[in-house]
Amino acid sequence: MKVYVHVTLKKGVLDPQGKAIGQALHGMGFDEVGEVRQGKTIELEVVTGTDIKRIEQMCEKLLANTVVEDYRIEVAA
Amino acid sequence: MKVYVHVTLKKGVLDPQGKAIGQALHGMGFDEVGEVRQGKTIELEVVTGTDIKRIEQMCEKLLANTVVEDYRIEVAA
Repeated sequence: MKVYVHVTLKKGVLDPQGKAIGQALHGMGFDEVGEVRQGKTIELEVVTGTDIKRIEQMCEKLLANTVVEDYRIEVAA
Repeated sequence: MKVYVHVTLKKGVLDPQGKAIGQALHGMGFDEVGEVRQGKTIELEVVTGTDIKRIEQMCEKLLANTVVEDYRIEVAA
Protein backbone atom coordinates (compact mmCIF):
# COMPACT_ATOMS: atom_id res chain seq x y z
CA MET A 1 0.00 0.00 0.00
CA LYS A 2 1.01 3.57 -0.53
CA VAL A 3 1.56 5.99 2.32
CA TYR A 4 2.25 9.71 2.02
CA VAL A 5 4.05 11.57 4.77
CA HIS A 6 3.64 15.33 4.57
CA VAL A 7 6.33 17.21 6.45
CA THR A 8 5.86 20.94 7.05
CA LEU A 9 7.67 23.51 9.11
CA LYS A 10 5.96 24.34 12.40
CA LYS A 11 4.17 27.65 12.66
CA GLY A 12 6.58 30.39 13.65
CA VAL A 13 9.62 28.71 12.16
CA LEU A 14 11.21 30.90 9.51
CA ASP A 15 11.04 29.48 6.00
CA PRO A 16 13.60 31.25 3.78
CA GLN A 17 12.92 28.90 0.87
CA GLY A 18 9.20 29.72 0.93
CA LYS A 19 10.02 33.42 1.18
CA ALA A 20 12.28 33.18 -1.87
CA ILE A 21 9.50 31.51 -3.85
CA GLY A 22 7.08 34.24 -2.76
CA GLN A 23 9.45 36.99 -3.85
CA ALA A 24 10.07 35.30 -7.19
CA LEU A 25 6.30 35.02 -7.79
CA HIS A 26 5.83 38.72 -6.96
CA GLY A 27 8.67 39.58 -9.30
CA MET A 28 6.82 37.73 -12.06
CA GLY A 29 3.63 39.71 -11.47
CA PHE A 30 1.69 37.22 -9.35
CA ASP A 31 0.56 39.84 -6.86
CA GLU A 32 -2.33 37.77 -5.52
CA VAL A 33 0.13 35.61 -3.62
CA GLY A 34 0.63 36.23 0.08
CA GLU A 35 2.63 33.98 2.36
CA VAL A 36 4.37 30.98 0.81
CA ARG A 37 5.71 28.00 2.74
CA GLN A 38 7.45 24.96 1.42
CA GLY A 39 7.26 21.46 2.79
CA LYS A 40 8.07 18.02 1.54
CA THR A 41 6.14 14.89 0.81
CA ILE A 42 7.59 11.43 1.15
CA GLU A 43 5.81 8.68 -0.74
CA LEU A 44 6.40 5.24 0.76
CA GLU A 45 5.44 1.91 -0.74
CA VAL A 46 4.92 -0.37 2.28
CA VAL A 47 3.71 -3.92 2.77
CA THR A 48 -0.11 -3.97 2.85
CA GLY A 49 -1.42 -4.09 6.40
CA THR A 50 1.52 -2.21 7.90
CA ASP A 51 0.55 -0.62 11.20
CA ILE A 52 0.36 3.18 11.14
CA LYS A 53 2.39 3.12 14.36
CA ARG A 54 5.34 1.87 12.32
CA ILE A 55 4.99 4.81 9.96
CA GLU A 56 4.87 7.13 12.95
CA GLN A 57 8.11 5.61 14.20
CA MET A 58 9.73 6.26 10.81
CA CYS A 59 8.60 9.88 11.00
CA GLU A 60 9.85 10.38 14.55
CA LYS A 61 13.19 8.71 13.92
CA LEU A 62 14.08 9.77 10.40
CA LEU A 63 11.58 11.49 8.17
CA ALA A 64 10.76 14.59 10.20
CA ASN A 65 12.79 16.77 12.52
CA THR A 66 10.13 17.11 15.19
CA VAL A 67 11.90 20.06 16.81
CA VAL A 68 10.95 22.33 13.91
CA GLU A 69 8.68 20.21 11.72
CA ASP A 70 5.22 18.71 11.91
CA TYR A 71 4.21 15.64 9.97
CA ARG A 72 0.92 14.24 8.73
CA ILE A 73 0.43 10.67 7.54
CA GLU A 74 -1.98 9.95 4.70
CA VAL A 75 -2.78 6.41 3.58
CA ALA A 76 -3.70 6.22 -0.10
CA ALA A 77 -6.74 4.16 -1.01
CA MET B 1 -7.63 31.11 0.43
CA LYS B 2 -5.02 28.44 0.77
CA VAL B 3 -3.70 26.46 -2.18
CA TYR B 4 -1.35 23.51 -2.03
CA VAL B 5 0.82 22.62 -4.99
CA HIS B 6 2.22 19.10 -4.85
CA VAL B 7 5.27 18.62 -7.04
CA THR B 8 6.52 15.09 -7.70
CA LEU B 9 9.10 13.59 -10.00
CA LYS B 10 7.63 11.96 -13.10
CA LYS B 11 7.56 8.20 -13.26
CA GLY B 12 10.86 6.86 -14.54
CA VAL B 13 12.91 9.81 -13.34
CA LEU B 14 15.58 8.67 -10.91
CA ASP B 15 15.12 9.93 -7.37
CA PRO B 16 18.41 9.59 -5.46
CA GLN B 17 17.01 11.43 -2.43
CA GLY B 18 14.14 8.98 -2.15
CA LYS B 19 16.54 6.10 -2.58
CA ALA B 20 18.72 7.40 0.24
CA ILE B 21 15.69 7.65 2.53
CA GLY B 22 14.72 4.08 1.63
CA GLN B 23 18.19 2.77 2.40
CA ALA B 24 18.29 4.62 5.71
CA LEU B 25 14.91 3.15 6.68
CA HIS B 26 16.09 -0.35 5.81
CA GLY B 27 19.25 0.22 7.85
CA MET B 28 17.04 1.09 10.81
CA GLY B 29 15.09 -2.13 10.50
CA PHE B 30 12.02 -0.89 8.64
CA ASP B 31 11.98 -3.80 6.23
CA GLU B 32 8.33 -3.32 5.23
CA VAL B 33 9.31 -0.31 3.15
CA GLY B 34 9.67 -0.72 -0.59
CA GLU B 35 10.14 2.14 -3.01
CA VAL B 36 10.45 5.64 -1.57
CA ARG B 37 10.07 8.85 -3.54
CA GLN B 38 10.33 12.39 -2.34
CA GLY B 39 8.40 15.37 -3.60
CA LYS B 40 7.67 18.84 -2.36
CA THR B 41 4.59 20.74 -1.35
CA ILE B 42 4.24 24.47 -1.75
CA GLU B 43 1.59 26.14 0.37
CA LEU B 44 0.36 29.41 -1.10
CA GLU B 45 -1.85 31.96 0.56
CA VAL B 46 -3.68 33.67 -2.33
CA VAL B 47 -6.45 36.25 -2.60
CA THR B 48 -9.84 34.53 -2.30
CA GLY B 49 -11.41 33.93 -5.70
CA THR B 50 -8.11 33.59 -7.53
CA ASP B 51 -8.55 31.64 -10.77
CA ILE B 52 -6.95 28.19 -10.76
CA LYS B 53 -5.52 29.11 -14.17
CA ARG B 54 -3.29 31.63 -12.40
CA ILE B 55 -2.00 28.92 -10.08
CA GLU B 56 -1.33 26.71 -13.11
CA GLN B 57 0.70 29.54 -14.64
CA MET B 58 2.75 29.79 -11.45
CA CYS B 59 3.42 26.05 -11.62
CA GLU B 60 4.40 26.10 -15.27
CA LYS B 61 6.61 29.15 -14.95
CA LEU B 62 8.26 28.70 -11.58
CA LEU B 63 7.09 26.07 -9.14
CA ALA B 64 7.59 22.89 -11.14
CA ASN B 65 10.14 21.85 -13.71
CA THR B 66 7.69 20.25 -16.11
CA VAL B 67 10.42 18.42 -17.97
CA VAL B 68 10.94 16.05 -15.07
CA GLU B 69 8.19 16.93 -12.60
CA ASP B 70 4.42 16.65 -12.39
CA TYR B 71 2.29 18.95 -10.28
CA ARG B 72 -1.11 18.71 -8.69
CA ILE B 73 -3.08 21.68 -7.36
CA GLU B 74 -5.25 21.27 -4.27
CA VAL B 75 -7.46 24.07 -2.99
CA ALA B 76 -7.99 23.91 0.76
CA ALA B 77 -11.56 24.34 2.01
